[in-house]
Amino acid sequence: MRILIVNPNTTVSMTEKAAAAARAVAGHGTEIIAATSKSGPASIEGHYDGAIAVPGLLTEIRDGQAAGAQAAIIACFDDTGLDAARALADIPVLGLCESAVVTAALLAQRFTVVTTLERSRVLIENLIRHYGMGGRAKVRAADIPVLQLENEASGAIHKLKRQIERALGEDGAEAIVLGCAGMADLARSLQREYDVPVIDGVAAAVKQAEALVAQGLKTSKRSSYAAPLPKLYIGAMSGFAPTAS
Amino acid sequence: MRILIVNPNTTVSMTEKAAAAARAVAGHGTEIIAATSKSGPASIEGHYDGAIAVPGLLTEIRDGQAAGAQAAIIACFDDTGLDAARALADIPVLGLCESAVVTAALLAQRFTVVTTLERSRVLIENLIRHYGMGGRAKVRAADIPVLQLENEASGAIHKLKRQIERALGEDGAEAIVLGCAGMADLARSLQREYDVPVIDGVAAAVKQAEALVAQGLKTSKRSSYAAPLPKLYIGAMSGFAPTAS
Amino acid sequence: MRILIVNPNTTVSMTEKAAAAARAVAGHGTEIIAATSKSGPASIEGHYDGAIAVPGLLTEIRDGQAAGAQAAIIACFDDTGLDAARALADIPVLGLCESAVVTAALLAQRFTVVTTLERSRVLIENLIRHYGMGGRAKVRAADIPVLQLENEASGAIHKLKRQIERALGEDGAEAIVLGCAGMADLARSLQREYDVPVIDGVAAAVKQAEALVAQGLKTSKRSSYAAPLPKLYIGAMSGFAPTAS
Amino acid sequence: MRILIVNPNTTVSMTEKAAAAARAVAGHGTEIIAATSKSGPASIEGHYDGAIAVPGLLTEIRDGQAAGAQAAIIACFDDTGLDAARALADIPVLGLCESAVVTAALLAQRFTVVTTLERSRVLIENLIRHYGMGGRAKVRAADIPVLQLENEASGAIHKLKRQIERALGEDGAEAIVLGCAGMADLARSLQREYDVPVIDGVAAAVKQAEALVAQGLKTSKRSSYAAPLPKLYIGAMSGFAPTAS
Amino acid sequence: MRILIVNPNTTVSMTEKAAAAARAVAGHGTEIIAATSKSGPASIEGHYDGAIAVPGLLTEIRDGQAAGAQAAIIACFDDTGLDAARALADIPVLGLCESAVVTAALLAQRFTVVTTLERSRVLIENLIRHYGMGGRAKVRAADIPVLQLENEASGAIHKLKRQIERALGEDGAEAIVLGCAGMADLARSLQREYDVPVIDGVAAAVKQAEALVAQGLKTSKRSSYAAPLPKLYIGAMSGFAPTAS
Amino acid sequence: MRILIVNPNTTVSMTEKAAAAARAVAGHGTEIIAATSKSGPASIEGHYDGAIAVPGLLTEIRDGQAAGAQAAIIACFDDTGLDAARALADIPVLGLCESAVVTAALLAQRFTVVTTLERSRVLIENLIRHYGMGGRAKVRAADIPVLQLENEASGAIHKLKRQIERALGEDGAEAIVLGCAGMADLARSLQREYDVPVIDGVAAAVKQAEALVAQGLKTSKRSSYAAPLPKLYIGAMSGFAPTAS
Repeated sequence: MRILIVNPNTTVSMTEKAAAAARAVAGHGTEIIAATSKSGPASIEGHYDGAIAVPGLLTEIRDGQAAGAQAAIIACFDDTGLDAARALADIPVLGLCESAVVTAALLAQRFTVVTTLERSRVLIENLIRHYGMGGRAKVRAADIPVLQLENEASGAIHKLKRQIERALGEDGAEAIVLGCAGMADLARSLQREYDVPVIDGVAAAVKQAEALVAQGLKTSKRSSYAAPLPKLYIGAMSGFAPTAS
Repeated sequence: MRILIVNPNTTVSMTEKAAAAARAVAGHGTEIIAATSKSGPASIEGHYDGAIAVPGLLTEIRDGQAAGAQAAIIACFDDTGLDAARALADIPVLGLCESAVVTAALLAQRFTVVTTLERSRVLIENLIRHYGMGGRAKVRAADIPVLQLENEASGAIHKLKRQIERALGEDGAEAIVLGCAGMADLARSLQREYDVPVIDGVAAAVKQAEALVAQGLKTSKRSSYAAPLPKLYIGAMSGFAPTAS
Repeated sequence: MRILIVNPNTTVSMTEKAAAAARAVAGHGTEIIAATSKSGPASIEGHYDGAIAVPGLLTEIRDGQAAGAQAAIIACFDDTGLDAARALADIPVLGLCESAVVTAALLAQRFTVVTTLERSRVLIENLIRHYGMGGRAKVRAADIPVLQLENEASGAIHKLKRQIERALGEDGAEAIVLGCAGMADLARSLQREYDVPVIDGVAAAVKQAEALVAQGLKTSKRSSYAAPLPKLYIGAMSGFAPTAS
Repeated sequence: MRILIVNPNTTVSMTEKAAAAARAVAGHGTEIIAATSKSGPASIEGHYDGAIAVPGLLTEIRDGQAAGAQAAIIACFDDTGLDAARALADIPVLGLCESAVVTAALLAQRFTVVTTLERSRVLIENLIRHYGMGGRAKVRAADIPVLQLENEASGAIHKLKRQIERALGEDGAEAIVLGCAGMADLARSLQREYDVPVIDGVAAAVKQAEALVAQGLKTSKRSSYAAPLPKLYIGAMSGFAPTAS
Repeated sequence: MRILIVNPNTTVSMTEKAAAAARAVAGHGTEIIAATSKSGPASIEGHYDGAIAVPGLLTEIRDGQAAGAQAAIIACFDDTGLDAARALADIPVLGLCESAVVTAALLAQRFTVVTTLERSRVLIENLIRHYGMGGRAKVRAADIPVLQLENEASGAIHKLKRQIERALGEDGAEAIVLGCAGMADLARSLQREYDVPVIDGVAAAVKQAEALVAQGLKTSKRSSYAAPLPKLYIGAMSGFAPTAS
Repeated sequence: MRILIVNPNTTVSMTEKAAAAARAVAGHGTEIIAATSKSGPASIEGHYDGAIAVPGLLTEIRDGQAAGAQAAIIACFDDTGLDAARALADIPVLGLCESAVVTAALLAQRFTVVTTLERSRVLIENLIRHYGMGGRAKVRAADIPVLQLENEASGAIHKLKRQIERALGEDGAEAIVLGCAGMADLARSLQREYDVPVIDGVAAAVKQAEALVAQGLKTSKRSSYAAPLPKLYIGAMSGFAPTAS
């Protein structure tokens, strides 16, 4: 089984970290193919970056599917472009936030997501409501720029732990969700330290992708995710037609 | 007062129709500046088109604000790119769906949105839930490709009326919202014919834009819509940095 | 365009303040006609006052419409009598709370309403839920009797600022809504001081009223707001028949 | 125990029917005191009538409490004036709609309310949502003017049965709630005929009133229902001060 | 009227306390028959105990109905087995949580439930959401093992009061619900001390049971609560067939 | 990896069908251990059967965990006993309904569950609301007794198809969920026939179980699912203490 993981941030070191996290949980016989978007922002921090990252992301999904991927993962916790990717692709497409909250909900009645920046907090809160988990989850921002997660000396882990402790002490959290692809390497050690389930979206998405493929399930093409209709795309976006190669 | 209306569909005839609808309701002293996106799909039909249309749309908003627009309107009922545009701009940004449902809710307890294609129906239903009106509104699709609305011989109006009649007869609708920018020219005559409020999103958005400017209100820059952070944008998207000219 | 603003509190100084706020934002060509209810409580503080204020309010709307008003505003943040007024009138009728939260929602994902007394806090919370914004808004009471807002020496502004600061610091508020008609004169200065959108319901309602009139929209007369049926009204209420002059 | 039942419709024959229904279920030792409002509309059909009926209703509650009533019931299914009455009175106050849906929910997972006129349908739907039962109940209108329920030859019962049959056949209703005080005499025979629980709001409210008194419970005077503050009431409403006799 | 109250905890002293609370509010002519489950855990603390307690509870309801009870009460605030009991019995069945929150909602807009252990807090929160009161109620755990409520020297009352004080001071609670059958004897004195309604689930359930019987209402047997179908029960559960005696 | 699948229906032929469905999707290296409950009803049809089935089910989970299972699945679409099992076990526990709707939601915006009997329809509707998917899913009953699914000549498949067709034609369903463990063998052929995703809960639960184990995730033991406290269990339930062997 081949699973494509696309980093919509154009920073290669983040892709490598996500790929490593994906490979660490992938099943026997699953090949993880990691791709970094070739156009868009270096990191996704808030709504603007998220929107600009989508065309580059969609290109990787289109090309990955053409090259034989059986499922695709969008390696950003904001689930940017997820609906568009599902309309584009025949294969299943997974987002980190959706995969992670669905996983947390199998283990705990109440949980807290800890994300990076305040500007992403409400965005993620709204996503979680849309996924139906608004009554079960809180979201906290740890005040960490995304690319600082690549830098061990940044104090980022200390800030992250501070919010996990508040989640456990103040929110009644029974599990913790790490709200950024760049935190994927920390899940296991934090789980040991705090003795609660700590869910990483990358790992969660890989397992959901494998699960769908194993069940022979693909994105529905009725109504919401019907394939894009053929039409003209012009200007800087002319290369982003759904069937171009 | 200068209000920018951006058509994220790259079809100029749609822009003209929207601009005409905007000018028909604009207040004394309001100048409507209409722009057509220079990159993206000819029409927005579903999630994929909606995502690919956003960068071109954001460029027009960025440039329009630099040229002195005091508010901006995204002329597509899917409200594609609305959150990104609010993060980008200092001026208020309005979407057609949000403006229309907010307007309908001031006039009626229950209403129905009639949109074009089935693939947009749930998308709009989800938007309306996100805006808090899910318990008050139904959404119907009239099975009309967006560009057929430009063509009087297409039978589109007949299909639209059929759904309005079902909304009034079966849904308990007390008002009708036209769910596509391309229907803007039909609101007044349909209102006369059916003797219920018929809301067009373009007109609604123009009046909301004027209202915000007159009150001296701008998009909040705390948290959700904080301005994009400076960073590198690469590849095909390198021209879409938020401060480029 | 003539817009009637009715103060359902029978205190004339409040009417004058609201009328001034209305005129400050009214469009070119809009005439604001302010009326004070001639029967009911001096101020509306809680459910009982709100109910007793309604007949006097409805009389002013009935008479104002007969005298040519094209829209009406109920100048009380509790939106008391709003549904009844919509059933009575053919012209659009706006409430302050509904107009203000709808306006705030165009500018911010999360916001806080600061009202006067604790007894009004849950009442407004329930209104906001009914308007579909319950997941986006918090309500705080500043412990200020309504008529103290007329008195600069009362310390009312200090109490109000204290709650605004808590909203920004503790609630994650991205905008502030002033939850009493008597605060209308403070919006601009508070907005400057705190650098977030501060929405006043009177101004918001005037602009919504103008917006509806400009679009040729009136309250739906299907179902919920059908005109009152002719019938006998007896006793102290015999003067409140819907068509009496 | 003395329970006051106030008919806010000023039609005495309705009061008698409600009083009979109340006495039929009242406990040993409960005295039912029925009062008809002395000012307001002959029948309550929609929002306008509902608002105008409130002052006369509140007067009866005020005077009834002064005369020793231990609980009060508002005999109108729209629950008009319920929050105001709870703020006014120290004794518990019950509404028919709230009492009936609370009762239905103890017997059935899903139920349908059958009310009189279409103009009341959404009003009751909104009430039921406010009471938290929106996901469990549907509302149907039988197209019966309220005062026709007093007239056996009107065909009203036939229309009512038609909607009950549709509720059972199409809505998946497991119980029926009669949505008008004027239907109180029909509950038992309809229950026998359709072999499902048929709940009458008058009977439900009497039993809730007795239940609260027996438990020594009164309306909370903290926050929402704090007693009205002393103030001036002028004009036609000057007789409606909360403490007048 | 005969009302059966079944304690699904197998501890007899708890049954006696609940029976006393029931008799204190029972109407003239109501006979309270108290039964203690003969199989299951000594106390119900969390989901596991709750599930294991159900068969023994259902047996008592089956046998009590056969012996002539006209309504049954499950004397545990978790409402464990409530849906199963309603399917089993023809007579009405009441739970403490449902009865208590329904009662609180007639007296207050916002209230707080104080329960025993943290492990029951979210369980009760979920129940209250299911009953439609999630937006009106908070739940607090006082950290008291259930059987300590039988022991006056345990400090349990002190812990309970601490949470009531926080509910009034921090939650905006207008009423308090005691979230354990074992607290039934404390309601009256706490109500006096804090001067807010304090609702005990046992008393509330007794009055709801009497109310239903007086109205001639029984659990609906359409759909959700249809009687169990005849079938084989094997092993340790072979004695739990619905019609065994 | 060893996954235990427990059939809480005491009918062995159903266990075999579920085990076959589980093995058909299990990953390389996963061993499926199927157990049939030794005490309880032959089939679970509605709330009563569901409650009586739980102790036998919990015994199998307790014993299976002791024998080395790394995750457990409850093979009944009503998710009966799921919370109790999660409190009991250290290993993850999956329900069919929760696993299936979570899976469907990754593939489709709207879907319909087709279950067996009308008495289970609202039960499943309530479960789905509790899982946060109430706005996305409808539930239909095909009027098939559970054990008829074992009998090919029963016409059950015809009834099932009839409801699938109505779901696609009337509900706007984009995917179908089979709402009974006994339908597990039909998913692939129905998916081919109707060309939409058809989700079987058994397969979905197996893949969720594998996913959790591979991620090193277990049920949270904080708050809701804390391990049962040691205590006395008496009577017929004395063998159901959580730590008995």
